[in-house]
Amino acid sequence: MSPNSSQDGASEEPKPVSRILIYMAMAAEAAPLVKELDLELREHESFPPGAPWQLHSGSHSGVEVHLVTPGKDKVLGVDNVGTVPASLAVYATAQAVRPDLIINAGTAGGFKAKGASIGDVYLASHFANHDRRIPLPGFEEYGIGLIEAPHAPKLATSLGFKVGRVSSGNSLDMMAADEKLITKNEATVKDMEAAGVAWVASVLGIPLVSVKTITDIVDGDRPTTEEFLENLHTAAVALQHAVPKVVAMVAGKPLVE
Amino acid sequence: MSPNSSQDGASEEPKPVSRILIYMAMAAEAAPLVKELDLELREHESFPPGAPWQLHSGSHSGVEVHLVTPGKDKVLGVDNVGTVPASLAVYATAQAVRPDLIINAGTAGGFKAKGASIGDVYLASHFANHDRRIPLPGFEEYGIGLIEAPHAPKLATSLGFKVGRVSSGNSLDMMAADEKLITKNEATVKDMEAAGVAWVASVLGIPLVSVKTITDIVDGDRPTTEEFLENLHTAAVALQHAVPKVVAMVAGKPLVE
Repeated sequence: MSPNSSQDGASEEPKPVSRILIYMAMAAEAAPLVKELDLELREHESFPPGAPWQLHSGSHSGVEVHLVTPGKDKVLGVDNVGTVPASLAVYATAQAVRPDLIINAGTAGGFKAKGASIGDVYLASHFANHDRRIPLPGFEEYGIGLIEAPHAPKLATSLGFKVGRVSSGNSLDMMAADEKLITKNEATVKDMEAAGVAWVASVLGIPLVSVKTITDIVDGDRPTTEEFLENLHTAAVALQHAVPKVVAMVAGKPLVE
Repeated sequence: MSPNSSQDGASEEPKPVSRILIYMAMAAEAAPLVKELDLELREHESFPPGAPWQLHSGSHSGVEVHLVTPGKDKVLGVDNVGTVPASLAVYATAQAVRPDLIINAGTAGGFKAKGASIGDVYLASHFANHDRRIPLPGFEEYGIGLIEAPHAPKLATSLGFKVGRVSSGNSLDMMAADEKLITKNEATVKDMEAAGVAWVASVLGIPLVSVKTITDIVDGDRPTTEEFLENLHTAAVALQHAVPKVVAMVAGKPLVE
């Protein structure tokens, strides 16, 4: 469909990056990175009272860095994962801190048939959905909602990341209908947020870079839930190292360089 | 899980309704109601440039009425249906106009096994999701995300609406896994937005009333897409009559009366 830059009303001119918003879905994924970047928990006066999302802010490599997580369900105590809380937290925080760049970092499933292994760090080339099946004219393509990531060729090669398409859905498991669309989306990486974040980023006209570490092999022999829980900590540590490298590399320069 | 009122930081005291925000997913659903309520298209300075949503505002029965639709995909020209655009449009507009009440009105599928017929108008008693399968401890219940509608017993009986649970998912079709969760959610009505809107309403601490007219029988003999397209106009006309009655009934009074 449309790259980020053509969905919005913003300028096509690449701006130097001076304010970065990082979105991570789980507190456990974010904790090592918050520590690494020395970010501090803060309130923001534009957030509605009782809003669940958690904002940590600071500076790194000479740029403002804001990291938001969607917070926890007040009754169940689990992270507010999925596309709706992601979109809302990113929108509210982007309106509050006006970033030049959004980074969606997190854990994800990977397909070994497309070359993914546990521990790999992927930079997303495209975002799409696999749980929005709307078989009406025009709506079918809308449901997929393919969005191209901004062109940043040096980022992956300089940092040694793999590059692949990310397909998002609100379920951790994968039923046959999901698998069919993930295959159609040519995705190497399966997550639960990126396409929602990409849609918000496109509405706001802010470029989105997505860094995903692989916790489980979707087309492997072991159950996703078991592999995910086993590798969550290792993946969070991988993000702790990968994301500051991205921040350092883009700081003060237009993203395309 | 939690009723709207316990998810948020807002007061438990019922407030008289003086500002209403109506959310409808499709321009074709909204057009007759916009005309009926004599609302005018407006810009709002708090919306980001290029934001797709469309706000119509005016007054009816002595209260401010704002109706927002998610707008259309710029490339494909179809309505931005689904939970993410719904949540974002409702959040952005609620922050802009500060409603006392949100009404999510729209077309939906109904289950004849639960008593639904084409043309029925339903008031939602509960909201839940059927496309967020997350088989991890705590997350499974989070994925369902059951939210109870505010208690407003006179509304349905006075207006002759049926009452039922609404289950939401981002697909128009229904896979076996969806059906299993819709059944578990005890839903009479299947739609593509309400649970997302309910989550945003709970974050904002604003009560949500949902009015759904049935365009297709999900457990019937005919294809959903065919019935939906055939009955969309009739359903939009039903909403044109039903929603102003809800507005008139709640105007100036606390919702619980």
